[in-house]
Amino acid sequence: MRAAVMYKAGDVRVEDRPDPTIVDSTDAVVRTLAACVCGSDLWPYRSMPATGAGRPMGHEFLGVVEETGADVAGLAPGDLVVAPFTYSDNTCDYCAEGLHISCRNGGRYGFDGVDGGQGEVVRVPYAAGTLVKLPVAADSALLPSLLALSDVMTTGHHGAVTAGVIRGDAVLVVGDGAVGLCAVIAAKRCGAERIVLAGRHRARTDLGREFGATDVVAERGEEGVARIRELTGGVDKVIEAVGTRQALDTALGAVLDGGTISRLGVPQYEQGPIGPAVFMRNVTLTGGASPARAYIEQLLPDVLDGTIVPGRVFDRAFSLDQTPDAYRAMAGRQVLKALIRP
Amino acid sequence: MRAAVMYKAGDVRVEDRPDPTIVDSTDAVVRTLAACVCGSDLWPYRSMPATGAGRPMGHEFLGVVEETGADVAGLAPGDLVVAPFTYSDNTCDYCAEGLHISCRNGGRYGFDGVDGGQGEVVRVPYAAGTLVKLPVAADSALLPSLLALSDVMTTGHHGAVTAGVIRGDAVLVVGDGAVGLCAVIAAKRCGAERIVLAGRHRARTDLGREFGATDVVAERGEEGVARIRELTGGVDKVIEAVGTRQALDTALGAVLDGGTISRLGVPQYEQGPIGPAVFMRNVTLTGGASPARAYIEQLLPDVLDGTIVPGRVFDRAFSLDQTPDAYRAMAGRQVLKALIRP
Repeated sequence: MRAAVMYKAGDVRVEDRPDPTIVDSTDAVVRTLAACVCGSDLWPYRSMPATGAGRPMGHEFLGVVEETGADVAGLAPGDLVVAPFTYSDNTCDYCAEGLHISCRNGGRYGFDGVDGGQGEVVRVPYAAGTLVKLPVAADSALLPSLLALSDVMTTGHHGAVTAGVIRGDAVLVVGDGAVGLCAVIAAKRCGAERIVLAGRHRARTDLGREFGATDVVAERGEEGVARIRELTGGVDKVIEAVGTRQALDTALGAVLDGGTISRLGVPQYEQGPIGPAVFMRNVTLTGGASPARAYIEQLLPDVLDGTIVPGRVFDRAFSLDQTPDAYRAMAGRQVLKALIRP
Repeated sequence: MRAAVMYKAGDVRVEDRPDPTIVDSTDAVVRTLAACVCGSDLWPYRSMPATGAGRPMGHEFLGVVEETGADVAGLAPGDLVVAPFTYSDNTCDYCAEGLHISCRNGGRYGFDGVDGGQGEVVRVPYAAGTLVKLPVAADSALLPSLLALSDVMTTGHHGAVTAGVIRGDAVLVVGDGAVGLCAVIAAKRCGAERIVLAGRHRARTDLGREFGATDVVAERGEEGVARIRELTGGVDKVIEAVGTRQALDTALGAVLDGGTISRLGVPQYEQGPIGPAVFMRNVTLTGGASPARAYIEQLLPDVLDGTIVPGRVFDRAFSLDQTPDAYRAMAGRQVLKALIRP
């Protein structure tokens, strides 16, 4: 089969790899119909040291089950399924609490002998616990929005859930990437009255407005904070979908005392400002890597009936062989989120 | 009147000061019956640079209303009242949300011309919003526990509330000071099933056991974390009642993925470890300075009927003139919490 492999920063190749087969009795083999490139794939694309073997890439995909191991209940060849961006057994104590990202048996695509999602076929460990069946046909127009449930939409939703967004809230979303835009959808879905989107890429913030942002702030740093405070008097909740210290500082500057900041962007820093000033203001810092699996069934009805259309974040489609172009286009910010159709 | 004033680290004096009178129409003048020394008073006691005028000390007191300004509704001379450790109008947007510590008109005793609580008489700003009437006689045996509502008990409660302690939780309380011990009371009151108290002062941890701690861990650092993990497999919630980086590291080491750490000790650090490791584990950092005023009426019934007896943290009483001895005894850890009877 063909699959994308990264050898070093800037070097993604699509090449022939062995056809995945069942290894463990809990595996399934899935033929991908749609995959995508994640904002987090761009970190190694910018910085990964050279590696001889290469790393299979991609962790968001949707496809058709081809084969299941002996211990995979509830799935059969021919089922259309979406995969959350990590696999999980859905039975351990963490999964039972809805924290599938911390699954005791979980792991990441592209590591430990597991295929990446940017390829024709993927062996999925703990398939019964991981994959979610989709009640649509393989040619459904809903596929992009269903694919968004594998990561960006469930991650945006994690931000709204952990921030505790409720009806009437004023919410700031920092970042106009696909996760930030899905966080706008999620904040609106949870009843936020005011949604300020901090971003400066016009096409993206325009989409953010269509998703429910009531205001857009293009200014950054102190100027951005001043503008958000001027517009709102301070926000109740912040969903921080970037991961830089500047984004965190914007969140801290904009949030009201007693408010909550949920982080969705992997922090690009080790230490942060959690000293007496934040303490005296009773600001809560929450969020983290999304337990996507916990949210897919919850959001599925809204995707199926068109209440939310997160698939609109995909603004260009590529064939599998064009995957290197997809990386280039996303890294150069010509494309918001690349859809890959193997 | 006589009152305690700090002039520099280690230098607390009790001296004559002008008798407080009504300055603003929202003031009340309160004659103190009981006051105390706070763990936070020990920070300036250890480090305050010399100051010519001195700083009136104390922010926890209980007493009898002597006089009220023209705009003080609901209070009259003779009323027995307890003061939360900051004053607040109880009407602004923050107070309306129960975040009195951030009151738009609030402030601290001993600053801005307001008396400290360690004195015979105190002018209380925004008295109607600040003071809570107590339905007991001035010689009630409940006075120490009612005084504890001014800070330590309402602060411990803030830890349990913000950590989200619920029935069945395993909770770690870091610190065996008066706030930590009150956090044990609060965690038990919220239904925690397992309460591990991290502390090494035997008399205090024994009191902690009487308050509801099921386990005591005296080890610190990595050894302490290992012991807590061995006992519990990791805790759901942590109430961190110290404020040092070591205490935070213990909290981070002991908490389960997806768990919550509530900080009650003022951080003695500006930067903390909130990088990718904490992010991937979905650990929430919450807590802060307690809005004591918001909790007094909520906890009052439990104090009045003896369900909780936080006054047991007071292990020695001093006269007002002995206040310097009280500081010395607390700084030297001979006394857990000093009660002052003017």
